[in-house]
Formats: sequence, structure tokens, C-alpha cells
Amino acid sequence: MDAPVLKRLRAALGDRVDSSPAALDAARADRSGHASPAPPLAVVHAESTEDVQAVLRIAHDTGTPVVVRGAGTGLAGASIAGEGEIVLSTLRLRRVLEVRPDDLLAVVEPGILNAELDEVLAPHGLWWPPDPASRDISTVGGNIATGAGGLLCAKYGVVRDSVLALDLVLADGRLLHLGHRSVKGVTGLDLTSLVIGSEGRLGVVVGATLKLRRIEPGTPCTVVATFPTVRDAARASAAVTASGAQPAIMELMDARCVAAVHALLELAPPAASTAQLTIQTDGRSAAVEAEQIATVLRRAGGAVAVTDDPVEGEELLRIRRSMHAAMARLGTTLIEDVSVPRSALPEMFDEIARIEQVYGIEIPTVAHAGDGNLHPNFIVQGPEVPERIWQAADDLFRAALRLGGTLTGEHGIGTLKSRWLADELGEDQWALQQEIVRVFDPRGILAPGRVFAPRPPGAALPEPHPAEEPHA
Amino acid sequence: MDAPVLKRLRAALGDRVDSSPAALDAARADRSGHASPAPPLAVVHAESTEDVQAVLRIAHDTGTPVVVRGAGTGLAGASIAGEGEIVLSTLRLRRVLEVRPDDLLAVVEPGILNAELDEVLAPHGLWWPPDPASRDISTVGGNIATGAGGLLCAKYGVVRDSVLALDLVLADGRLLHLGHRSVKGVTGLDLTSLVIGSEGRLGVVVGATLKLRRIEPGTPCTVVATFPTVRDAARASAAVTASGAQPAIMELMDARCVAAVHALLELAPPAASTAQLTIQTDGRSAAVEAEQIATVLRRAGGAVAVTDDPVEGEELLRIRRSMHAAMARLGTTLIEDVSVPRSALPEMFDEIARIEQVYGIEIPTVAHAGDGNLHPNFIVQGPEVPERIWQAADDLFRAALRLGGTLTGEHGIGTLKSRWLADELGEDQWALQQEIVRVFDPRGILAPGRVFAPRPPGAALPEPHPAEEPHA
Repeated sequence: MDAPVLKRLRAALGDRVDSSPAALDAARADRSGHASPAPPLAVVHAESTEDVQAVLRIAHDTGTPVVVRGAGTGLAGASIAGEGEIVLSTLRLRRVLEVRPDDLLAVVEPGILNAELDEVLAPHGLWWPPDPASRDISTVGGNIATGAGGLLCAKYGVVRDSVLALDLVLADGRLLHLGHRSVKGVTGLDLTSLVIGSEGRLGVVVGATLKLRRIEPGTPCTVVATFPTVRDAARASAAVTASGAQPAIMELMDARCVAAVHALLELAPPAASTAQLTIQTDGRSAAVEAEQIATVLRRAGGAVAVTDDPVEGEELLRIRRSMHAAMARLGTTLIEDVSVPRSALPEMFDEIARIEQVYGIEIPTVAHAGDGNLHPNFIVQGPEVPERIWQAADDLFRAALRLGGTLTGEHGIGTLKSRWLADELGEDQWALQQEIVRVFDPRGILAPGRVFAPRPPGAALPEPHPAEEPHA
Repeated sequence: MDAPVLKRLRAALGDRVDSSPAALDAARADRSGHASPAPPLAVVHAESTEDVQAVLRIAHDTGTPVVVRGAGTGLAGASIAGEGEIVLSTLRLRRVLEVRPDDLLAVVEPGILNAELDEVLAPHGLWWPPDPASRDISTVGGNIATGAGGLLCAKYGVVRDSVLALDLVLADGRLLHLGHRSVKGVTGLDLTSLVIGSEGRLGVVVGATLKLRRIEPGTPCTVVATFPTVRDAARASAAVTASGAQPAIMELMDARCVAAVHALLELAPPAASTAQLTIQTDGRSAAVEAEQIATVLRRAGGAVAVTDDPVEGEELLRIRRSMHAAMARLGTTLIEDVSVPRSALPEMFDEIARIEQVYGIEIPTVAHAGDGNLHPNFIVQGPEVPERIWQAADDLFRAALRLGGTLTGEHGIGTLKSRWLADELGEDQWALQQEIVRVFDPRGILAPGRVFAPRPPGAALPEPHPAEEPHA
């Protein structure tokens, strides 16, 4: 039954249409550990805006669903493709069209990797601040689609703060130019911001005008502190924020994470329950700020080491960067992504400890402590997440909401969290957001079912939570 | 014919409904110098979210248009109210509900003035970065509605970078909570950003969770440089940006502005054609950066003075701050607001000189040179802008678009620029944005005709311009 669509795709796009079993199989999964039950119809490797438009016109005509895919490094399942779906790959759209040091902007295609872009920018003394942990393997387009965060966000902002304009192909193939090249611009509604983080539901980004920063002078300093418990480390990180210091990076690892990484790297095992903060300062006053921070950490009971040696600093950061590899040795990892106001970090760690007890599981947790974003890791064996683990995750999400936080700080909703979306947004906003999606995509062919899953008939209304009360 | 609506308003809101001639007359104008031909129906002084909801339910029921109004300091006419319209004033909604130094956020009502908020924040060592020139007289809600900018934007961002969450009453009276209290959050579509700058078309903001910064240590330094021509000054400002320096403030005044302010302040008249840059650096490295900038300016041919004395610095900035008063002495001022990429500032000044010649008029121009936002002032006599001046403005807008810029950097579209909106957005995006407005406000009762004016039947399609071509 799919043959006519495939035939039209091939007629328009030739060998850029790939229906080899290997390509179809690769598109069934992302880095969440999840996979769709059946392969998609085809993978189309777009090489131009016109290719993207051609695919969407055919899909729109025939009512065929389209899933946009970059490097497939997502953690929420938004780019996992299934039966009957066209996968539109942007990986070959990877040109840097412009770099303007005088205007601090670059114009790029979506398929370039985040780290590759910075290699192009570095000789100009420039960089693009978004730095998801996946930056070596994730695309700029994927960063935009998820509204990615990273380690540097408290100081340098998230993707939304670093994009000026987007070229967007609508579901029916029309091309829109959203935003502007100037620092300021308030002409009409801010559709650029609306598209950032929309996870493929509003259109296909084929070009992006990025806001750049200059590489700061000065040598970064690295501060590492260990604490007897994770709660002590969380309180210390809150004290750093409250002190007025502005670390570029402030990462917190709980005892399970520290132990797992030490085992992976064959380091001496840490004392039981030892949690760690890894902090980096940068810019002209990096050394002064590092000393200030070290003082705060010592007062908070930490054992502190400071270095301005880049090699030593990188060695200290390696412990944090080895988290994913250390978790992968334990099983399949469901990486959660709740975010809370920074002052609520200690309570959130208390909630995680409670959930570990209630469900009899271990939840190794790392946090971007500078911005309040936690990644609790649920370790499961095999490709399916047991319902019991989802119940623990449900408990986790509700705890984050109670503390004034959110379901997802930087990974997105995708398919894995869509059942909790209305709980955070409230039913009215949840419905209204879907009406906005229909304005962009009236036939509903773009990533259907992602982010906004149908509510099961007769589903209970969500419990009230703090975000539903007026701020008073 | 309006009596039943007024009656229902009075029954629900009592003496918070004001239909005195003075109140109605005040709501006919803003700071643009324009006024509506007839007074509105009533001004309602909302004192709570429930009041706002009550007004909107009545308006929605009866199909009565509602114009939200803060301090009425807008420059684009969005809050000018006319015949048959309800003015919903948010000026009495002025509480600061929360200040959280530990989370760097505050929760406020929309009617508080920008400068009043900073008085509340200063004892906590905090500030809210948006600093429109109107900050002493404009409300936070108005700043949000217009997506306001100001002097500090190149370094500290615009309103969109400083708002985490909004409480929004929809046209039908329902209350939504948009956004989150955490630094990061990507749950669903970013409606907070969509509402910022939407000029009253999507709903009524009744609460805002603001992202704050700490007051930086260090003494600001002020650098003033004069140049023989405005083009020299513009090239010098571009050289400052290109040098990697990051001024907090970088303001450019052309010769007509400098002369007008000198006359107002009774200072010795400047040499003919003298243009001026006024620059301020702040933070720990303010002095080092000021010296770097002074060197760049001297190399660019400027006569340069530097001071780290706060009183002297404020005295130097007074020349820039006296612009509005100096213009007001010349006649009614139509303050334009185009924004271009920073490197295009010199060409934009060339275009302004060309337009002055073609139309035989003077266009005193001040620019936020650090971010490329220009305010060319059209001086007219009397309350109506002659069509000839609108033609010159049209020429100005098209020049800004050709240079990769935008119609409005920070003042908004309102009623005064709506006829150019489709030229910048393109017809497809212009139509799509209106469909989004209809999702929020299906009956079209919120600020009808603002931002999106009906296209005159048979209007010519806009000329193609650079923003309509793919970035290539």
C-alpha cells in the first residue's frame, strides 16, 4: 500500500531515497534506548531546501507522516520512526553559509554537528554557546528542535538565547523566514522562539542564523569538591549560586555516579556516600572567582582542590564526562531530565532518595547544579522499561512539579514523556498548544503522536499542582 | 448602544469602572503623539486577576473589543483606544509577590514600573536587565507586551531573555500559566516567548516570573568620543564591536541630535557635523575595557575622553538622556525604530542622509550602536503625520530591510507600522501569524486591528527583499 508514495519519492529525489533494511532499522531508535516496533517506509537524505520541500509536498498530498531526523542522538524518542513514516534526514544539509565576526552571527544548515560548528568558528575567535553533553555527536538542527541545554547554561543561556532566525519549511512545503539578523527585532509574533524546542511538530528547520559569542580571554580554573553526602553537595552548590559567583560549569554527581565512574576509570574507590561538585570558572576573573567559590565550598564542608592548569582541569572534568559510559555498563539507562529552581536542589535529592526506598531501586543522579537540572538515571535490563520503573518516574515528575520545577529541562517530551505533558501544562494550555500545531500543520503529518499524545479516553484529570495556582 | 456592556461592567466591577471624560480622553493617546478620533467606552482599573477575568468574560460574551493599557508610554499606538472599546488598565496590579535571590527570580504583577521594580530589587543586590529609555515611566507589563529593548541589550539581552514564566488571561477569561521557574525547561511549545512582544493580541499578562541578575561589582567607566561625521562615528562603533570589547552601553548621536541637546542644555554649540559616541563599560574589568575601547576610538579618528568618576560619567550620559526633551522642542516627533546588523550601521546612516535629501527633511538620529538599533526622528508640526513623511518612513523601512534589518527593534508594530508588517514577514507568515492569534482569541476581541491590520483590497504584493531569499 505504500508503494505509490515510495514511487513518487523516488521519482522526485532519486537515490536520495533509501529503503535499505540497514537505513530503515537505524531510524527505529535513538539514544533513549527505545525503538519502534516496525521500520519506517523510507529514509530520504535531503541535500537542499528544495529536497525538503519536495518530500513535504509529496507527504502532504498523500497524508504520509514525516519524522525529521538529524544524528539520532535524542533522549526522548521524538525522532524514532515507525511503520508507514517517511524519515527526512537533514544530515547532509551541513554547510556553514556565513560567519560574521563583525555581527557575531553565523548562518548554517541544520545537519552540521555542534562540535564541528565550533571548529569552524574557533579560528574567528567565536563560539556558539549551546553545549549539550552530546555536542560531539548531535546536530545544530537537533539542538534547535529540542531547545537543548548543556553544562554552560546558567552563565551562557540555552539554545533559545542563541538563535536569531530560522528558515522553516511548513508541512505543505512552503518556506518561511522567521526572525531577523539584528540583535533586536519585535516585528510580529516571535515564531523563531516558538519553533525552538517544538520537536519537529511545526515544520522542518533548513537554515539557522545563530547568535555567537567571542571566546573569552583568560584561563579557565577548575574546582573540585567532595562532600560526605549528596545533600551536602547540593546545599553547597546552592550556596555558590547564592554567593553571587557565576561558574561557567557546576556539575554535581551523587555517590552512585562517583563510584560507577571510579570503577570505569579504574580509580581508587571513593569513600562510601561521597558526592562531588565539579566547577569551572572562565573569563578575565576566572582565578578570583575560583578562589571565592573554593571558600564557599570549604565553609560548606567540602574537601576542595583548585587548579588553573588546563590539562589537570580536563582530567578532573573527565570524571563528569565519563558518566554516560559508566551508566551504560550497568544496563539500559533511562536518563531522566527534571529541572527545579536552584534552591530546591537539596529537596529534590531528598525526593530521589525517597523514591529509591519506595521502589527498591537505585537512581544514580547527576545534576547541572548551576541551573537546577537533574538527570536521574533509571537502569533497566533489556529494551523495555518495566511499568514499575515508569511508576517511579511518575513519582519523580510529580515531585519536581511540586517543587516548582518541570518535567524536562533540556531533552524534550518526545514520545517518552507525552503522557505527563498535560499534568504540567494544564488541560487548557495542552489543548491550545495543539491548536497552534494545527495552524502550522493542518493535516497532522509532522511527527504525529510526538509531544502531544492523545489522552486515553476517560483519563482522570491531572491532580492540581503548584504551577496551576496563581503565584501568590 | 453601549449601555448594556457598561451596565454589566459596573455590576461586576463597581467603581473600578471609570467613564469620566478625563479618563476616557487620556486613553486616546500614547507617547507616539497619535490619538484616536473618539474616546473609548470605559476604563476599567483591574485590581486582581479575577477583575481581569471578569472584564474579559463580559467582553467575550458581548463581543466588545478590549485594549490593555499600562502606563501608556508606547511609541507605536498599540494601547491607543477608540470608540466602543474597553480599556483594561493594569496600573493597579503592581505588587511584587516574590523576590528570590537564591533562584535569581522575582514574581511581579504587570503594572509596576520598571524603575520601581529595580528599587525593590537593589537591596537584594539584584536587578532586572531590560532598560528601555522609558524605564522610569513604563511598566514591566508594557515592557513584556512590546518585547522592549533599551540601552544595555548588546551585553544583557532584551526582555525575552529575562522572563521565565507568564500568567496569561485568555480572551474568554480563562487563566493559563506559561513557562516555568527553573533556568531550563522545554515542556511543550514555548508560549512564554510567543506572548512576549505580542502587543496585547494573545491575552492579558497578569503575572510575570522574571529572570534577574546580580548587580556586578566594579565601577562603571564612561567613554565619550566625538567624530567629524556620523559615518565616522558609525564606523568607529562597528570597530568597537569587531574588536571584541563588550560595552554595556554604546550610544551614537548624529550631528543634529548633538546640536539640539547642546541647545537644550545651554552648552557651547558643537562644531558643525560633529557626531558623538557615548560608551559605558561595567563589571570587574570595566577600566581595562574602557581603555581598550578608547584606543579603538582614537585609531578611528575620535576625540576621546574617559572617566571612572560616577558623577562625571552621569554628566556625560546626560547628553544622551536629554534626546527626547531636545526633540520635543522641535515639534511632534515620530520616533522610528529600525534595527540592522551592526556592521550595516554606516550604510544605514548613508541611507538616512539620502532620504533627508530626497524628501528635503531633517532626520535627527540616535542609535543604540552596540546592537544596531536606530531611532531616526521625523519632526512634524501638529498631531497628524503628513503622507509625505510616511513616504520617507516607507523609504527608511525598505532600506533597513535591504540591509538585512527589521522594521522595529524594540517599539513594536502597534497601529503605526502595521501596513508594513507583511512586507517584512512575507504574506504566508503574515497570514499564519494571524491564524495563531485566532487560536488564542477566536472572537477577535483583543486589540483588534493592532499589529495585523487588514490588507487593503487589491493591495499590491510586496516587493521581494533580501529577507525573502534563502540565506545563501
